Amino acid sequence: MQVRRGGMALRTGAAGKGRLATDKGCCYFFSQRLGRAGIATGLNNASMKQTAAAARRAAAIIAGADSSRKNAVLHHMRGLLAGSLDQLLEANARDMQAGEARGLSAAMLDRLRLTPARVESIARGLHTVENLPDPVGRIEGMERRPNGLLVGRMRIPLGVIGMIFEARPNVAVDAAALCLKAGNAVILRGGSEAENSNRFLVDSWRRSLRAHGLPEDAVSAPPSADREHVGEMLRCEGEIDLIIPRGGEELIRFVTRNSLIPVIQHYKGVCHVYVDEGASVAAAAAIAVNAKVQRPGVCNAMETLLVHAAIAPEFLPAAAKDLIAAGVELRCDEAARGLLPGVPVKSATEEDWSAEYLDLILAVRVVPSLEEAMEHIRRYGSGHTESIVTRDHGRAMRFIREVQSSCVLVNASTRFNDGFELGLGAEIGISTSKLHAYGPMGLEELTTRKFIVFGEGQIRA
Amino acid sequence: MQVRRGGMALRTGAAGKGRLATDKGCCYFFSQRLGRAGIATGLNNASMKQTAAAARRAAAIIAGADSSRKNAVLHHMRGLLAGSLDQLLEANARDMQAGEARGLSAAMLDRLRLTPARVESIARGLHTVENLPDPVGRIEGMERRPNGLLVGRMRIPLGVIGMIFEARPNVAVDAAALCLKAGNAVILRGGSEAENSNRFLVDSWRRSLRAHGLPEDAVSAPPSADREHVGEMLRCEGEIDLIIPRGGEELIRFVTRNSLIPVIQHYKGVCHVYVDEGASVAAAAAIAVNAKVQRPGVCNAMETLLVHAAIAPEFLPAAAKDLIAAGVELRCDEAARGLLPGVPVKSATEEDWSAEYLDLILAVRVVPSLEEAMEHIRRYGSGHTESIVTRDHGRAMRFIREVQSSCVLVNASTRFNDGFELGLGAEIGISTSKLHAYGPMGLEELTTRKFIVFGEGQIRA
Repeated sequence: MQVRRGGMALRTGAAGKGRLATDKGCCYFFSQRLGRAGIATGLNNASMKQTAAAARRAAAIIAGADSSRKNAVLHHMRGLLAGSLDQLLEANARDMQAGEARGLSAAMLDRLRLTPARVESIARGLHTVENLPDPVGRIEGMERRPNGLLVGRMRIPLGVIGMIFEARPNVAVDAAALCLKAGNAVILRGGSEAENSNRFLVDSWRRSLRAHGLPEDAVSAPPSADREHVGEMLRCEGEIDLIIPRGGEELIRFVTRNSLIPVIQHYKGVCHVYVDEGASVAAAAAIAVNAKVQRPGVCNAMETLLVHAAIAPEFLPAAAKDLIAAGVELRCDEAARGLLPGVPVKSATEEDWSAEYLDLILAVRVVPSLEEAMEHIRRYGSGHTESIVTRDHGRAMRFIREVQSSCVLVNASTRFNDGFELGLGAEIGISTSKLHAYGPMGLEELTTRKFIVFGEGQIRA
Repeated sequence: MQVRRGGMALRTGAAGKGRLATDKGCCYFFSQRLGRAGIATGLNNASMKQTAAAARRAAAIIAGADSSRKNAVLHHMRGLLAGSLDQLLEANARDMQAGEARGLSAAMLDRLRLTPARVESIARGLHTVENLPDPVGRIEGMERRPNGLLVGRMRIPLGVIGMIFEARPNVAVDAAALCLKAGNAVILRGGSEAENSNRFLVDSWRRSLRAHGLPEDAVSAPPSADREHVGEMLRCEGEIDLIIPRGGEELIRFVTRNSLIPVIQHYKGVCHVYVDEGASVAAAAAIAVNAKVQRPGVCNAMETLLVHAAIAPEFLPAAAKDLIAAGVELRCDEAARGLLPGVPVKSATEEDWSAEYLDLILAVRVVPSLEEAMEHIRRYGSGHTESIVTRDHGRAMRFIREVQSSCVLVNASTRFNDGFELGLGAEIGISTSKLHAYGPMGLEELTTRKFIVFGEGQIRA
């Protein structure tokens, strides 16, 4: 699932956290006039409310579908991707042409583009989801109460998920696969720039559903790409149960401010590595380089390196050498600069501490203590991912307990905060808000739990 | 915790579901001009934003407080309730006087009133919460990944909870106790009609916190009872993590429409008992009577009885006799009336199927099948609580699987959908929306889980 991580979807900025991540075209959603033609898969004359109501009816059926049938739909979709590859690439080529004509940025066009290799990677993702265990119907925590009642909780689908995403057409496959496997219906509101690609993919889903006797409305799109429908979607609170926006800061801000439906927020990743006093210099340098360099453009890449003052004189020169060799620009506080004489580094400014570079740039700060490191993280972090490199058990456990980010690591790269790496099998995104889910969201996070009670005639006294 | 259940807090109507529950004064929040004096515990000159920021700082400390210290605060509060009973009752008497002068309804005044017995019951609730296990720091699902990383999830507090409630001053104790025990700070925005009582209780919490070296801002109130502060609270999305409104339909509707912060919704309880073909008539009648009569004014009381046509001729006359003897008015469909010749019943109208009577009134319908019963529940139910009475294993399991309410029971009274009865120990409310929590919310539901990872220098390939 690695190929689907990061990218625009997960590099979003938190509302109120400042800086737009301008390299990602994340304002695209609002900076253009959206076309009126749009996606209209079988619903050209329907209203958004009707689309949502149809999804709700389909959700009631997909909720009860057994795993083998849901897997058959995913399998069928995989077959369509392979069997209709030319048509999909042709639809995508039309989007690319239109995008070029409209002057989309090279980065935006790259996200929009489908190639045989990219489609194959999407198909592999479908295969992965097919093989994941189905969370629906799982019973947890069954216990006998003193009055003899057996009480437990059963996982059930959330219902209807509204995905609102930007250029990347792969989301129309990846996200829908996870939603369906977890027994949900999904409404895919993709960006108008990927209109033809998305329409083809939504149509393919609907064919796959029909082929296996499931309602095609389990995957649908708004009546058109008209932006009005986004606002309407966010007010369908009786029909849609959850909104997952994947896009830039403005999109998430717009969705949060206008939604009557719960929204999963994917805020930015200002991730930290803290190198503790007494850490292994070699291990710490390897983790720092990996966290920054292995894939700098994704949300779980390190943006700030914090170094305990006692280890800084030994660690910083060694780490700086490796980082600079890997092409990283260092922006250091005064103490760090003092320890790197003759090394080409810049001075960090206050803005650097909350910057999400998504690039080969790293802020570096020397701290006098673990407490100061944690205070820095609390003040400037985004609640995404933080790692401590240490040999001291007590400080490792304090960091684990006291740092309240969605993923807290000891002696490992921040790059492991990823649904696949953490064992979820796949992910629909990373939540940096604490409600419902915190951190990577997989199949289980697309379900909820109801209480189930088995009695033998018990009544309440 | 039984004494705190039901009441106005849990009898709310779903937005868009029609009917106002007029007997509960649930429009009170909006139908009066709120006074300007209000609660101003130590924060008279502070803005709502400052109050929220202070709560956030306190939350960072209370999150790390160990169980014994949090329990000591609860114990101290219990002591204050006993030791300062006269002052509390005196403050409450002023609210009662003001309420009488303002012409509050008898029902509203009853909810507002504190008596020595009620305060004792509140104190017992504190004792219960004190004895519950602390969810904070609990590690779940620790597993070893193929690369040797140990990955699990640790429960952490949500942060700052905003409680918005109406007349009942007990909420200022019950809800705060649960929030604190789960490591959260709480902002208590009670109704202005309980201004003096709430101020006394918030002050008592703050004294208890101070007495045990914890920040008093872990329990606070808006700068005044001014309604503007409610709107401001709902926009403190950087400081407050969750809003829990407890009140009538209009309050919940207002909060949902205006909040930038996730909201737990407590919608109405239109609960069903379905008596299946072949059920034990005696057991079914006992469950039906208990579900309707044992406490008719609460959200988990049965409002509609569905009876399979095959058992109706035997069951209905027997059940009707018991229900009528208990003072229940029956509103029957035509088939049910036909089976009750000479029994004084009314005809049910379409409105009866979605009515939340909260009274000794019961809608009764004969259905031809289990499928029709489940369809009726899907169409008219509120997702709260449904029970099947049956001897048939297959139909019991179908009902358990297919009915998607927050609590689904087999052969037991709907009245068991209650945090205490289901084993949570206590509850802060019942969620009828599926995100974050579905059904009764206890301590665990006032926390979230972060990922924790223990490595030995792992980096990502």
